Amino acid sequence: MKKLDKITPISENFARWYVDVIKNGELIEYGPIKGTIIFKPNAFEIWENIKTILDIQFKKKGIRNVYLPTLIPDFFIKTEKEHIKGFAPELVTVTHVGEKKLHDKLYIRPTSEVLFADLFKRSINSYKDLPILYNQWTSVMRWEKTTNPFLRNTEFLWHEGHTIHSNAADSRKFAKDMLWLYKRFFKQYLAIPVIVGKKTNREKFAGAFSTYTLEAMMKDGKALQSATSHYLAQNFSKSFKIRFKNDQNEDEFGYQTSFGLSTRIIGALIMTHGDDYGLIIPPKVAPIQVDILEFFSDKSPKIAKTTNFLEKKLSKKFRVRVDKSDEQPGFKSARSEIRGVPLRIDIGPKDVENDEVTLVRRDTHVKTKVKITDVKKVVFETLEKIQKDLYENAKKRLYENIVIVKDYETFKEKIAENHFVLAPFSGDDHEEARIQEETGATARCIPSKFYDKSQESFCMITKKPTRRFVIFAKSY
Amino acid sequence: MKKLDKITPISENFARWYVDVIKNGELIEYGPIKGTIIFKPNAFEIWENIKTILDIQFKKKGIRNVYLPTLIPDFFIKTEKEHIKGFAPELVTVTHVGEKKLHDKLYIRPTSEVLFADLFKRSINSYKDLPILYNQWTSVMRWEKTTNPFLRNTEFLWHEGHTIHSNAADSRKFAKDMLWLYKRFFKQYLAIPVIVGKKTNREKFAGAFSTYTLEAMMKDGKALQSATSHYLAQNFSKSFKIRFKNDQNEDEFGYQTSFGLSTRIIGALIMTHGDDYGLIIPPKVAPIQVDILEFFSDKSPKIAKTTNFLEKKLSKKFRVRVDKSDEQPGFKSARSEIRGVPLRIDIGPKDVENDEVTLVRRDTHVKTKVKITDVKKVVFETLEKIQKDLYENAKKRLYENIVIVKDYETFKEKIAENHFVLAPFSGDDHEEARIQEETGATARCIPSKFYDKSQESFCMITKKPTRRFVIFAKSY
Repeated sequence: MKKLDKITPISENFARWYVDVIKNGELIEYGPIKGTIIFKPNAFEIWENIKTILDIQFKKKGIRNVYLPTLIPDFFIKTEKEHIKGFAPELVTVTHVGEKKLHDKLYIRPTSEVLFADLFKRSINSYKDLPILYNQWTSVMRWEKTTNPFLRNTEFLWHEGHTIHSNAADSRKFAKDMLWLYKRFFKQYLAIPVIVGKKTNREKFAGAFSTYTLEAMMKDGKALQSATSHYLAQNFSKSFKIRFKNDQNEDEFGYQTSFGLSTRIIGALIMTHGDDYGLIIPPKVAPIQVDILEFFSDKSPKIAKTTNFLEKKLSKKFRVRVDKSDEQPGFKSARSEIRGVPLRIDIGPKDVENDEVTLVRRDTHVKTKVKITDVKKVVFETLEKIQKDLYENAKKRLYENIVIVKDYETFKEKIAENHFVLAPFSGDDHEEARIQEETGATARCIPSKFYDKSQESFCMITKKPTRRFVIFAKSY
Repeated sequence: MKKLDKITPISENFARWYVDVIKNGELIEYGPIKGTIIFKPNAFEIWENIKTILDIQFKKKGIRNVYLPTLIPDFFIKTEKEHIKGFAPELVTVTHVGEKKLHDKLYIRPTSEVLFADLFKRSINSYKDLPILYNQWTSVMRWEKTTNPFLRNTEFLWHEGHTIHSNAADSRKFAKDMLWLYKRFFKQYLAIPVIVGKKTNREKFAGAFSTYTLEAMMKDGKALQSATSHYLAQNFSKSFKIRFKNDQNEDEFGYQTSFGLSTRIIGALIMTHGDDYGLIIPPKVAPIQVDILEFFSDKSPKIAKTTNFLEKKLSKKFRVRVDKSDEQPGFKSARSEIRGVPLRIDIGPKDVENDEVTLVRRDTHVKTKVKITDVKKVVFETLEKIQKDLYENAKKRLYENIVIVKDYETFKEKIAENHFVLAPFSGDDHEEARIQEETGATARCIPSKFYDKSQESFCMITKKPTRRFVIFAKSY
């Protein structure tokens, strides 16, 4: 068994805290190639839970899973000009098989828009074939020189949805629907509140017409783009010549969307809920929901009996782990805390004499004595409460840290204090780049709420009248 | 909607039949790169069902899922000499990122033994850390110049289990346990009977000490290796220096296994159960178990009512699809057949007047009138029956086509007739190679039954006394 290391306090050094928590939680190992990570069971099982829940929701919307090849031919990736521009420097390139040089280069998918475009082209003839709603769960690669686990690593896991529709309205509506599906999922399962909005031109996906985004706030005040949904319009369908006969029997190009969420969300979970004691994983996606710890089981035969009774009873409804090791109680509790198990049940000699056990909430550290016969009911209620409280606390923090400013001087101050700053901004890509250079902040999104869209203001940079407000923040 | 094409009869041309069935079943498209395929929903959903069932069984055995990087560094793959020899010519090789040449070559995993070996090396110190039981669901690549969907394609999906133990006995037992787990899974879920055995030296996995295999017989008499489990002994642990302190506090190398099953099993399903009308998918892994077809719904309002009633009722327990289209009954039935849906419910005007519907078994084409109130019960029983019959029929065919021979002349005859031929054989790699050259057959396995192991015979090639019998067959 590995020893637990000291965790750097959040207040001391957030980046070091993050790495310490990951190490102690046994979430990853660094891969043999720079920029890669190994997802160990404690991390992968969070991803499995996320996948299972989302997959059911996708299927309810009529989305079907497929699997497309990992390799993209050279002539494909160059077909959509904006797209290739966005991804070229990070492309992992295959040139040989064994010792033999290939005629054309191949690329490991950084995303699969071009592969889906080609599949759609071959699949549709008539508007009656539309919409096609596909998804795949897979890994993608975008080369990174440095590694920040879950947030910045060369290979990551994700899902990528790809759809094609017979008209612009349906297509755009689908892209937006997926955004709201994500938002509900984030609230209900990940306990992460998010700001919903649209990306500026500079920040949108390479090849998209519009990119919609969910932006979450980490405990250090930085933004983390948590999922995106793109309305591609006819950008790819025109490049790839994806034509269908519409209901007027005329040729028309299809209208596409794509949307995705990746394992960087595990990073978001850690930085939204974790504390100085380690991980805190929301019950609904936690690999283990209840940790049952036996203390001094040699002191009373009732202890083992109680453990077995509760394990059997709780396993029917919850994901349970039992720790019967003879290690010190303090060590066992710390290990459970560090791994972020939302609820702990301590079973010790004194308690069992009174037919009780002690429930310990991971988030608040509050201990409650509970009669053994009531445990199942109380566990259920407490897990619900933890899930809700994690969300409410994160939401409170998010709302308290959004500030509205009107001028660039205040903007710079607030960004330096690590706030999300909402400001009137009508500038272009160059002005956005200048803001980033001067403050380190990027345009996270044009939010769908938080300001009165009818009210005219003046752009903090150009001073021109504008009705557009943009949220800026430093980000991961 | 795509038109249905003619399916070449099995008796006319098996290979063409196979491709026709796949095309009509809308299982795949060919990928843009030679050797690759796209798994469309009808195929991928079979794989999802297989995955869900096996994953539960793996977890019950204490195996935990992980995800390791796709790319293997050059110095890793060369560490185990036999292993690299086996895979070198098929290795897909990365040399560049963007325009920039990498210092060392990287390979897309053809399998991940070397990556797991490195992870194990970093994870274990003491025998108390063992065993470690890991698995991953992923894709792998082994370059192919030609494509035979599911059977021979550059990239395929699989699971690969990797375990490490503190002693040889536990490790070998684990490898064998997995073999029997597969065998039960094949029988209960895929309705595929298999021959269990051990590979000869020539046919074993590159780097294994022993390879255990499941060999299935396709409808053309050829063998398909359906899953393998390898006892790696200390081959990788010595190359990678995976040491632990044993209970005597001495350094010892770990004992490893690996085991896997891939999407080629979809090919096995097709070639074990399919017929001249198309696919037949066993109910337990069928994406759709019951097809409800409405015929002439304009003729009676009772038809739509019955459809809705049955859809609601059956969906609770079975995977159901409803076809309310106004296409011709013959076309609708043919489409359901071609897709291999195990059970069909025809709802037509005459039947509903008698409060009946017609159940049609995909495998036997037998039609049964069933009272609407009895449908759920009869569907359940019929699906069970279909599952069982598919297995029994395949088993009968397998057993009828195994022949035992003693001499090489008869051997050649029987191989030419596409039998599985069990023969006394004690030859080495060279003699096996000669048999392959002369007959096209390879040693499938040394079976665990089918012959009396105590009885001495004479090798059909060397004429030396031997107690070893080997099954030879042509194979995929």
